[in-house]
Amino acid sequence: MYVDTVTITEGLQSNGSSKVINSKQDFMKVYKVLTDELLADDLIAGQPTFSADYMRRMLDYNVPGGKLNRGLAVGDILGHLQQDKVTEQQMFEANVLGWCIEWLQAFFLVADDIMDNSITRRGQPCWYRAPGVGLVACNDYIILESCIYRILKKHFGQKPYYGLLLDVFHETTHQTAHGQLLDITTAPIGTVDLSKYTEETYLRIVTFKTAFYSFYLPVVCGLLVGGINSDAAFATAKDICVQMGQYFQIQDDYLDCYGDPEVIGKVGTDIQDNKCSWLVVQALRRANKPQLDVIKENYGKDNAASIQKIKDVFVELELEGVFKEYEQASYEKLSAEISAQRELPAEVFTALLKKIYKRQK
Amino acid sequence: MYVDTVTITEGLQSNGSSKVINSKQDFMKVYKVLTDELLADDLIAGQPTFSADYMRRMLDYNVPGGKLNRGLAVGDILGHLQQDKVTEQQMFEANVLGWCIEWLQAFFLVADDIMDNSITRRGQPCWYRAPGVGLVACNDYIILESCIYRILKKHFGQKPYYGLLLDVFHETTHQTAHGQLLDITTAPIGTVDLSKYTEETYLRIVTFKTAFYSFYLPVVCGLLVGGINSDAAFATAKDICVQMGQYFQIQDDYLDCYGDPEVIGKVGTDIQDNKCSWLVVQALRRANKPQLDVIKENYGKDNAASIQKIKDVFVELELEGVFKEYEQASYEKLSAEISAQRELPAEVFTALLKKIYKRQK
Ligand SMILES: [Mg+2]
Ligand SMILES: [Mg+2]
Ligand SMILES: [Mg+2]
Ligand SMILES: [Mg+2]
Ligand SMILES: [Mg+2]
Ligand SMILES: [Mg+2]
Repeated sequence: MYVDTVTITEGLQSNGSSKVINSKQDFMKVYKVLTDELLADDLIAGQPTFSADYMRRMLDYNVPGGKLNRGLAVGDILGHLQQDKVTEQQMFEANVLGWCIEWLQAFFLVADDIMDNSITRRGQPCWYRAPGVGLVACNDYIILESCIYRILKKHFGQKPYYGLLLDVFHETTHQTAHGQLLDITTAPIGTVDLSKYTEETYLRIVTFKTAFYSFYLPVVCGLLVGGINSDAAFATAKDICVQMGQYFQIQDDYLDCYGDPEVIGKVGTDIQDNKCSWLVVQALRRANKPQLDVIKENYGKDNAASIQKIKDVFVELELEGVFKEYEQASYEKLSAEISAQRELPAEVFTALLKKIYKRQK
Repeated sequence: MYVDTVTITEGLQSNGSSKVINSKQDFMKVYKVLTDELLADDLIAGQPTFSADYMRRMLDYNVPGGKLNRGLAVGDILGHLQQDKVTEQQMFEANVLGWCIEWLQAFFLVADDIMDNSITRRGQPCWYRAPGVGLVACNDYIILESCIYRILKKHFGQKPYYGLLLDVFHETTHQTAHGQLLDITTAPIGTVDLSKYTEETYLRIVTFKTAFYSFYLPVVCGLLVGGINSDAAFATAKDICVQMGQYFQIQDDYLDCYGDPEVIGKVGTDIQDNKCSWLVVQALRRANKPQLDVIKENYGKDNAASIQKIKDVFVELELEGVFKEYEQASYEKLSAEISAQRELPAEVFTALLKKIYKRQK
């Protein structure tokens, strides 16, 4: 009954093979289906209007406004996995799981913005700063999360892999929450303790708070819809996706300082925000005593002079070059691992990697 | 390996039948088992000490400090269901599920206190007001919730009813979150709109935010451990538990105004806090025009004169008597339904009802 929301198009994408194309527009249609279903739920439909209206506004504000990369990736991965054998029903299921990932991200972002006292998100005020919201947002992200399990039950409750799917979403939530905890206890708001900014801690933070939900989860969802359920395939995917997620976050930290604000859409603030960023971690490893003193004196201070002193140390330590070397090495290592593994079609991973390698935003 | 943490004692509890006694002390031992397991998790054990230590402190502060009525109820219900045929392993499982309910409650209470800007909880500062916490608490309650699914997977992942158990916890979370949303949109902090305080909305709020997790969830958990899995038994339990939960919350609202502060351990503040309480809902239904004006003028105002004026209207409307009549009628209706149903031993429900009927705190 819902499959007609997904358009099947013949076309040449990559490798010259014919396959189902999953457009952003089709993906958005699935969002509409899912929110209508959620709001038609007995409980919610039975609420007084002011409560049901609040719910729709909250979903529309928080769920669909991002780049949708993670959500769209599930259908792409399924396409690469099965080449031209994707049915409309499968693509619909992939898109439903894609939306569950977007819901998961919305849930964490609403919480993160409250914790970080952030101002804007995706070009609008953070949800907790929207009119009439405030700390009601603390319950809203509980609702955002609980939508995931409504959707999964409705659309996957009869699948043989339903239990596995629930476990994967629970596990990813656990990982992301502990990544967030480590992030915020490493750099508590208002305090600076650079001794905690080690490479090991940095990699743990980004692995748990970003890599699992952004890379591993979309791949696992694509594999499950494609009928793949082997521990070996999941282990391979985890290994590759975690590295890709680390690379992605390291790029993010690099772009915060060296990206073009016009292109990335914001001016970076990691230095004054005292972030445990890849750049400061590298600087701390490489700095001599005077440079260390400059970092200790100026990192996390929100004034132009302090920020400039930190940037000067980054230049002295040639961190742009360090990043480019890391980027190249990381790309080569990932490419080699992707070619070497025999569990999954290489394109499942290379297509993901292609999207992020040397990205400017 | 864990069953030796549960003591089996012969004894006469009620009805003269011999059964497994589940003491609060035994229940606390299971808490210790569960937290040790959670902290031994690869991810958490691998975190830097400051993060793992934070996690333990957060659990100990928030999970075990309440009255534990909901958690203990699971073992009690199992006992009443099976009489003297409860094995140690079953009682352990009931206690594990009891703790999952306590974890669920902790998760919602940490969030609720932030939203309500509350000061104390269970005789100590609310968690978000504890030293070094603040809005990190927004992530902590995500972690509290995710612990539930770690525990369920570890201890119930191989049970035939594992999927059902996950669905019940998800459903209860959904209900509670929507009860909270209705609660806070009915009486947003800082605004008073008494036109929203209808009996229908009141009953929806208490049903969803309290009754399901406090009464229905412990009963379902007890039934599942006892091997009962019939839709008819669940439907009966839901019907009775929802009514019991409504009665319980109406008592709570009554005691807030008429209870002995020495006994209930706090001075009620529902009137000045602008709560959509059962008392004000009854007053609004019964008030004449001058009384209505007094309510509109004074409800939700935090000064002694306004509070007294509201209390005077409650006296004029004889709300104590209205409550006592409701209490008696509710008790009789519940008792009749419990006797009439043939799905479950009456004692499963009468034991619960006995604990709350005419409670003073
Ligand atoms: Mg943030
Ligand atoms: Mg953050
Ligand atoms: Mg960044
Ligand atoms: Mg409260
Ligand atoms: Mg509240
Ligand atoms: Mg109360």
